[in-house]
Amino acid sequence: MKILMVFLTFLLGAAALLYAWLVYYRKVEALEIKEKQIAELSGIIHGGAFAFLKKEYKWLACFVGAVALLFLLRMGLGYAFSFLLGAVSSAGAGWLGMYVATRANGRTTFAATKGVSEALDMAFSGGSIVGMLVVGIGLVGIVVSYLFMGVNPATLAAFGMGASSIALFARVGGGIYTKAADVGADLVGKVESGIPEDDPRNPAVIADNVGDNVGDVAGMSADLLESYVNSIIAAMAFGFVCKDLYVGGEVLGLRGVVFPLLLAGWGIIASISGCLVVSPNALSSVPFVGDFVAKAFTVAEKIPYVKTIMDRVRSGDAAYALRIGLFAAGAKMIGGTFVLSMLFFFWKTFNIFLAVSSGVLTAVLIGFATEYFTSSEYPPVKTIAEASDTGPATVILSGFSVGMKSVVIPVLLICFATWASYVLAGVFGVACSAVGMLSITGMALSVDAYGPISDNAGGIAEMSKLPSDVRKITDKLDSIGNTTAAMGKGLAIGSAALTALALFAAYTQATGLSAIDITHSNVVVGLLLGGMLPFLFCAFSVEAVSRAAQAMIEEVRRQFREITGIMDGTGRPEYEKCVSISTEAALKEMVVPGALALLSPPIIGALLGTEALGGFLAGSIVSGVMLALFMANSGGAWDNAKKYIEEGNYGGKGTSNHSAAVVGDTVGDPFKDTAGPSLNILIKLMTVVALVIAPLFN
Amino acid sequence: MKILMVFLTFLLGAAALLYAWLVYYRKVEALEIKEKQIAELSGIIHGGAFAFLKKEYKWLACFVGAVALLFLLRMGLGYAFSFLLGAVSSAGAGWLGMYVATRANGRTTFAATKGVSEALDMAFSGGSIVGMLVVGIGLVGIVVSYLFMGVNPATLAAFGMGASSIALFARVGGGIYTKAADVGADLVGKVESGIPEDDPRNPAVIADNVGDNVGDVAGMSADLLESYVNSIIAAMAFGFVCKDLYVGGEVLGLRGVVFPLLLAGWGIIASISGCLVVSPNALSSVPFVGDFVAKAFTVAEKIPYVKTIMDRVRSGDAAYALRIGLFAAGAKMIGGTFVLSMLFFFWKTFNIFLAVSSGVLTAVLIGFATEYFTSSEYPPVKTIAEASDTGPATVILSGFSVGMKSVVIPVLLICFATWASYVLAGVFGVACSAVGMLSITGMALSVDAYGPISDNAGGIAEMSKLPSDVRKITDKLDSIGNTTAAMGKGLAIGSAALTALALFAAYTQATGLSAIDITHSNVVVGLLLGGMLPFLFCAFSVEAVSRAAQAMIEEVRRQFREITGIMDGTGRPEYEKCVSISTEAALKEMVVPGALALLSPPIIGALLGTEALGGFLAGSIVSGVMLALFMANSGGAWDNAKKYIEEGNYGGKGTSNHSAAVVGDTVGDPFKDTAGPSLNILIKLMTVVALVIAPLFN
Repeated sequence: MKILMVFLTFLLGAAALLYAWLVYYRKVEALEIKEKQIAELSGIIHGGAFAFLKKEYKWLACFVGAVALLFLLRMGLGYAFSFLLGAVSSAGAGWLGMYVATRANGRTTFAATKGVSEALDMAFSGGSIVGMLVVGIGLVGIVVSYLFMGVNPATLAAFGMGASSIALFARVGGGIYTKAADVGADLVGKVESGIPEDDPRNPAVIADNVGDNVGDVAGMSADLLESYVNSIIAAMAFGFVCKDLYVGGEVLGLRGVVFPLLLAGWGIIASISGCLVVSPNALSSVPFVGDFVAKAFTVAEKIPYVKTIMDRVRSGDAAYALRIGLFAAGAKMIGGTFVLSMLFFFWKTFNIFLAVSSGVLTAVLIGFATEYFTSSEYPPVKTIAEASDTGPATVILSGFSVGMKSVVIPVLLICFATWASYVLAGVFGVACSAVGMLSITGMALSVDAYGPISDNAGGIAEMSKLPSDVRKITDKLDSIGNTTAAMGKGLAIGSAALTALALFAAYTQATGLSAIDITHSNVVVGLLLGGMLPFLFCAFSVEAVSRAAQAMIEEVRRQFREITGIMDGTGRPEYEKCVSISTEAALKEMVVPGALALLSPPIIGALLGTEALGGFLAGSIVSGVMLALFMANSGGAWDNAKKYIEEGNYGGKGTSNHSAAVVGDTVGDPFKDTAGPSLNILIKLMTVVALVIAPLFN
Repeated sequence: MKILMVFLTFLLGAAALLYAWLVYYRKVEALEIKEKQIAELSGIIHGGAFAFLKKEYKWLACFVGAVALLFLLRMGLGYAFSFLLGAVSSAGAGWLGMYVATRANGRTTFAATKGVSEALDMAFSGGSIVGMLVVGIGLVGIVVSYLFMGVNPATLAAFGMGASSIALFARVGGGIYTKAADVGADLVGKVESGIPEDDPRNPAVIADNVGDNVGDVAGMSADLLESYVNSIIAAMAFGFVCKDLYVGGEVLGLRGVVFPLLLAGWGIIASISGCLVVSPNALSSVPFVGDFVAKAFTVAEKIPYVKTIMDRVRSGDAAYALRIGLFAAGAKMIGGTFVLSMLFFFWKTFNIFLAVSSGVLTAVLIGFATEYFTSSEYPPVKTIAEASDTGPATVILSGFSVGMKSVVIPVLLICFATWASYVLAGVFGVACSAVGMLSITGMALSVDAYGPISDNAGGIAEMSKLPSDVRKITDKLDSIGNTTAAMGKGLAIGSAALTALALFAAYTQATGLSAIDITHSNVVVGLLLGGMLPFLFCAFSVEAVSRAAQAMIEEVRRQFREITGIMDGTGRPEYEKCVSISTEAALKEMVVPGALALLSPPIIGALLGTEALGGFLAGSIVSGVMLALFMANSGGAWDNAKKYIEEGNYGGKGTSNHSAAVVGDTVGDPFKDTAGPSLNILIKLMTVVALVIAPLFN
């Protein structure tokens, strides 16, 4: 019975991969780009992105090999295999995701020459392939590790550690790459020389577009894969711990292990449905499947209101379509959760159902809170824009306080979810709540990855000097992507907090500690050291970006000064120099933060003991979650305050208000795209490392 | 015996007050200001400062009265009396300190017309009066509370709560007042209109100078008084808990209660000696005492090297003199500690001695670390200045990462002191370590308060259009004050962490909790909520400053626009309008942060229980300490990066580098003078509130 369930999960994971494959070949590859220049530019970006990824992966391969060897020697083959599998899954997701994104960007530009709904369809197809690849690879990876190694929580944790460590490097490296290029391109191009964004005369423009893929696609894919698998692993670990319990008159067995797997599997079905709502014809050219989907829609549209909704979706209202897609996935997920809870835990259906649903609900509400603080439709961003009247300093100060205030609601929601799911179903409940939060990652990431694809499409349109109405279409898609991306980031951070808490609980189980008592001075010391670490980590990553950006700025200035004819378009900028500045910086600067994350837990554990290490993890979760929320949201708010001014408010582009807002945006760039999202991974990576090495301290 | 010791402490506290009184009458009041304009301006600032303080205290009197009534009704007379006494001590220290500072500022200007050593002597005399007032009032207040109420840790905590709550309001209110005026004056005056700092044509100039006193003297005095008394109270509470222990063959009794008092008392002697080193003639006109001091110096100078050192001090090298004064006080403190440890705990002399010394040492080392990160002589500030080449955004980013990195060393030192003093002498050791850290507050605050007095003296010199060499003298004194002030802030934060930890331990004792276990979900929820609070608190206080500063900027711009002849000096700016903007803002905006601090502990305790409240306090200490260090140091670093550029580096004043650095300085202003230092108080206030209300939850 158990093995059947696991096999079913495998099939559901494979279904995600199949969906991705079908959409890729039937929709993306099927469209031929008939404009030579678009194809060429897309090819250059594709090439640049993979040149970086190859270098990065070469470096990471050495690192992964070394750690795997260490595992093999100290802890046995199971650990080494699981760790490798996790690392390869994460790296593979990043690689494939970026491959798809850099194939879809030019096609989206080309589709935009035909119309907005064609462009939306292509960009979202690309995004949904990335989303499905990540969840498919993640789930299949876990099942494979499970089948080979059995349900040992420790080897599962090694799988998570492999995924996390690659994710951390990918996020930090990608984040440094993209933001160095972005900041450099903007400050010299937009501010000093007054040329538009993505202007081909700007030497950093290629690096900037490559960066979008390296950071926002490869980095984010690895990041969400890591969140996704770690939440499932934490829940499985708790399910395993409860296996000898008698509940409802029978022994629990491995139900608690299989339940999170099936929950995630069902999340894939829910996500595919959500994607199909946004892009109903995604599979129409596939035999049988296309007919089945069409028939399902015909049936569904007989339900009241559904037809009205779908008609509006089909009309090309992108923001509406994406939101409905997300809601559809969420609703389907909650429905499925109820059925699964009934099948697995019939004596406690409601408790488990509510615990999982509290996670789903928290994800949605954090999304709304994030939107409130980062969208220009609400007061916070407007206040920042207003502060531009009195210069950059007040823009920074008000963005800073918006970011700090934005911490409150998510933390209250996380606390509520933790408290409620614990009351409902103990630590297993907390872990399931995290799985619930991440179950529709497939859909959420589809919406997220759609953003950088549209962004790139806009860049290609600008660089190939297409008519301005094409650029308008891509700009519109891009700006919608910003809002939905903010919701995605909220999801990532919220789930990170819950997952870290669940992993933390798994750590206490694994070390056999009966308590981690903060009245013990060792634990207090651990708590303070843990609280300090995210600050140091942020310092390193922000510093890396600002150092690399300064080098980029000097280089762009030099080219403007030295290359004759660059401004009137007769001289060709040396794009490669800028690309190589970003590449070198990213590879060099990702080492220290990564080492910090990997080495701190063993050092603290060895020096101060397992209880202090528990305090250390708790401290890092506390300050890490706060900083991550603060940085992601203040960055987003500054970005949108700038966009709000660019829309013509407070004088619009070219005024002193605008340049004040650009300063805010520039400061926010590494906050929201380098340091903030890396912190999510940091806290989970440190916890999972502690969990893996726990047996060494016993 | 015990009562004799307490009486001795009382005398030592009174000695500090006597010293302050003597220096005030013999040195400050004795100097007559013979320049009418200096006297007039000093009078205006004095009047403005007290106009604000009166309004603020009226409001605070209502608040204190209400809380005292609540104590009277719910917890008895002892609590109400102690709370009132603590509040009055804190308010009195602020009032008297500011009185002295606003009498000394004009006299320092006048002394500067005679020479640098005369000016230094006057400014430091003013500073040392403030310093001695604070420790004298603090120690006498504790002794009085102890004599009337007995050694009940709970009523002592009520004393601390009174001092803390006034300190919080004074810090937040004063910080908002001064920074609104400062930011407003700088951004319009220096940046937009290009007139120098403290130019009388700037309408915000009086508010700015008043603000220095309100924030940096009244606010800081209340702040350090609070740190000082809370560290002593925490140690006494632990001493009391141990009273029935048998150690070294006899019952411990109240040794542990009296020891911290005498330690603090000895600290006063050490501080007075330190002050006399800087200003050897401070008491020379006092009968008997003057002769005694002179003789002591003659004896001391027979020790090798001492004469050489004292000669250099007398030569007018202000920075050297202040540093030697601090070292002298520190050395004398450590010596006295050994004697006291031997007398009180002869069987554990070295343990107690080392625990206290670890505190003194940590204070000194944190001071050096702070200096490294905030002084323009070292790489961090130079990096920020260098980043001005690429505009304000990179200045902000590099200051941000400098601030975040600066967290590391102090946290490591605090962890080491906590760990070591715990190993040496348990929680009592940790508490004694905090007392050690703060024992030479008298000297440290003398050096600190010397800063705003010199700052004001410079302002008065500028406004009375004295020759530029007078301004040069005051500028030099001011810039030295900046460096020493940074060390003072490091001390305040470091001691806050240790004191908060000791109070936290006292809280666990008071609630009778055997453990605060972070594997319990309630505690985790508390930890997260506690970690969130400092962020919210910072958001409120930074937002308050930026809102008030924006109003100030609009007002200054309006006056420049509407008042004819303001720029050529024929029209008089409406200074009062700017003063009233700062006043209104400070009074209005200090309410919410204050309420947040006072109400959170009872709410959390009532909703989630005492164990979760413990988690809450721990969370707030973790993120509060990090944020406080980060904000204070990044603010200081930005300030000095700007000064470094003003000294002529990277192009100096008037260049784009300079205006980029001004943006950094402006952002840093509320960080280092409003939010950062208030956080120290916040974490202690919340802990002490929890300690006071703990009996209600049992």
